[in-house]
Amino acid sequence: MAATEYEAVPAVDADIDARRTGGPQGSVVVMKFGGSSVADPEKLKRVAARLARARTAGHRVVGVLSAMGKTTDDLLALAGQVSPTPHPRELDMLVSTGERISCALAAMALHDLGHEAISLTGSQAGIVTDTVHGKAKIVEVRARRIHEALDEGKIVLVAGFQGVSTAFEVTTLGRGGTDTTAVALAAALGADQCEIYTDVRGVFSADPRLVPDARQLARVSFDEMLEMASSGARVMATRSIEVARSHNVKLHVRSTFEEGEGTWIQEEDEDMLEKALISGVVHQREETVYHVAGATRARLFGALAEASVNVDTIVQTGTEIVFSAPVEDREDAARTLDGLGLEWSARDDLGKVSLVGAGMKSHPGVAAKTFATLERAGIEAPIVSTSPIKIACHVPRADVDRAVQALHEAFDLG
Amino acid sequence: MAATEYEAVPAVDADIDARRTGGPQGSVVVMKFGGSSVADPEKLKRVAARLARARTAGHRVVGVLSAMGKTTDDLLALAGQVSPTPHPRELDMLVSTGERISCALAAMALHDLGHEAISLTGSQAGIVTDTVHGKAKIVEVRARRIHEALDEGKIVLVAGFQGVSTAFEVTTLGRGGTDTTAVALAAALGADQCEIYTDVRGVFSADPRLVPDARQLARVSFDEMLEMASSGARVMATRSIEVARSHNVKLHVRSTFEEGEGTWIQEEDEDMLEKALISGVVHQREETVYHVAGATRARLFGALAEASVNVDTIVQTGTEIVFSAPVEDREDAARTLDGLGLEWSARDDLGKVSLVGAGMKSHPGVAAKTFATLERAGIEAPIVSTSPIKIACHVPRADVDRAVQALHEAFDLG
Repeated sequence: MAATEYEAVPAVDADIDARRTGGPQGSVVVMKFGGSSVADPEKLKRVAARLARARTAGHRVVGVLSAMGKTTDDLLALAGQVSPTPHPRELDMLVSTGERISCALAAMALHDLGHEAISLTGSQAGIVTDTVHGKAKIVEVRARRIHEALDEGKIVLVAGFQGVSTAFEVTTLGRGGTDTTAVALAAALGADQCEIYTDVRGVFSADPRLVPDARQLARVSFDEMLEMASSGARVMATRSIEVARSHNVKLHVRSTFEEGEGTWIQEEDEDMLEKALISGVVHQREETVYHVAGATRARLFGALAEASVNVDTIVQTGTEIVFSAPVEDREDAARTLDGLGLEWSARDDLGKVSLVGAGMKSHPGVAAKTFATLERAGIEAPIVSTSPIKIACHVPRADVDRAVQALHEAFDLG
Repeated sequence: MAATEYEAVPAVDADIDARRTGGPQGSVVVMKFGGSSVADPEKLKRVAARLARARTAGHRVVGVLSAMGKTTDDLLALAGQVSPTPHPRELDMLVSTGERISCALAAMALHDLGHEAISLTGSQAGIVTDTVHGKAKIVEVRARRIHEALDEGKIVLVAGFQGVSTAFEVTTLGRGGTDTTAVALAAALGADQCEIYTDVRGVFSADPRLVPDARQLARVSFDEMLEMASSGARVMATRSIEVARSHNVKLHVRSTFEEGEGTWIQEEDEDMLEKALISGVVHQREETVYHVAGATRARLFGALAEASVNVDTIVQTGTEIVFSAPVEDREDAARTLDGLGLEWSARDDLGKVSLVGAGMKSHPGVAAKTFATLERAGIEAPIVSTSPIKIACHVPRADVDRAVQALHEAFDLG
């Protein structure tokens, strides 16, 4: 089950559609760079050079940056030294400085390259959110200041992961926040595409560290990417893909430091359907699987949601309910289950392997082949769950790598 | 000559005078803590405890904080790694994060102590400045948000050293900026006093590291403090004392980590005049002294001001002009003098010793006694300059310590 991280539809200024075709300065391109892409001054300068190239090519360029490397972790550690339970509003005031630092530095580097540039905080950029500190949702993008700067020919650097609430407080967006900022901006600005620069070359048919002949995918549909992201692919957060899908913003995942075409994430089209039965095998090495007896589902999952436990798979046969959740949510889950007075057990010895592909919908037999493959490899799969474009099998953690390799080969994805 | 750092008079909301007597929650007190007072999480927690005590005593409490320890220097170094000449607007975006971090952390610590608290950036606090990045001047304080928070019983933490310009850009106030923020807020909020917490116990009759029997002064006038600050005392920046004097904000300099009465800086009163002929001996170990021939003064000092050279003493006898300036301005000064095509020389072997006291005005003979004391000690003083409450002598750098000790003893200041 995907977490309910759907972002409210950003309200788009009425006059923006007129810009969709691009003004006199060409089309808008939003370029997002994550923490590892801006980890040190040298890397920041290379990012600035990338942004400059896009401007020179005639685009209206908006860069969205994460905090440098471990900056956010350092700030959180500092908060932990001051307070055991940091006040949420103040924690947002604190950690939101990280992205501001990388944007200001990138703007300096761009000036040195002979380009006009301006860094904006989430607040200055008009990223308006709800009032939930630490995991705010974007409710509106008021891009007036960005438009003005673009009209003046400037490259705009927007601090990712943050906004200003309807109560005028600084908020942060939580996990995957910078991706979400970039996609929401691309939607609001009518950008042709949102480029997601990262430390991998694109989306692969499997993790290349596990499967040496894994193939880079040229195109993936939003639905496939959503399934992949919630099944263990770490390229983008589920939430930002949801926003991209609902606003039909084409995403382009590519490497910060290597040239290359990367992977497009976009609406499913007929071409793709014909070509790709299965797009890839994704995996998650660590998950906790819970077995619960005698619970009503509504009460159980209501309580888990309230405790912010990100429930993934849910399977039920008979009166026993089985579900999985990230290991880091174990404490919250245990407290919730105990609080409900339920009989339960948990196991930490399983991982998950998922086969994802839009073509699966029209090709029966994928499930059968999956099970046969695992059986032949002597791998048990005690829990299975499916969606129209995914088959997920929980397998012993020790067998995860072998299962990925076997399925990748069986479906000829290399 | 003091640098022209006079701050424009902050416009004060019309309804603020009504608050001068204190609302139902007692009088407003502004408490400023410098970088060494908030250098690490433990010290920050002690600062929070100080603020909490003032709140418990019934005050409306506003804390103004600097960045933690070396944070600002670290951020400047980071900028230096990215750009040889960082863009001024972006440098302000960058370094202003430092104070925001310490304020957010202090607010967290206050929550843990059971107090409501809120941190505000300079912009959120309504510190409106002119548009000069890196050394902006405060033009207005729009304290609506601070008043609201105080009315709700909250302790307000304001990020020092920064504001928002009339063009809606983040600005920083330059050297001594956090003191200036604190004093301007005290004026605008009608605070009874502005408390300057620092790593010394107060203002002394001489540097206690040089003169073991130096005496802590109970009271100093604004004029004396201005002379002392511009002659080498490092307790407060000249600029913030100017603002305090022009708004008649009583300053109270005291130690962050020790109890004690500290030193009051306030309007001169009759009492003080009778008591203190000389308040103290201050010194500056490093200054560059320039000798310039054949220049017109207006042209010379106009050009130096434009190059941001902080000219201190100016002496002229005949056609040669002699002036001094901080060693860190040497490069700018040299370029300016060369640019004017002047014949000049500079010497770096002199320091400065100054005797400051409001009582000097009505007591002739201080200059004579000063010269006699130095002569007896065998110390040359090639350059002398005076104001109504100060006698400054440039002496060989190697003799600075001895000169301070001799004068402190001769005027019986211990």
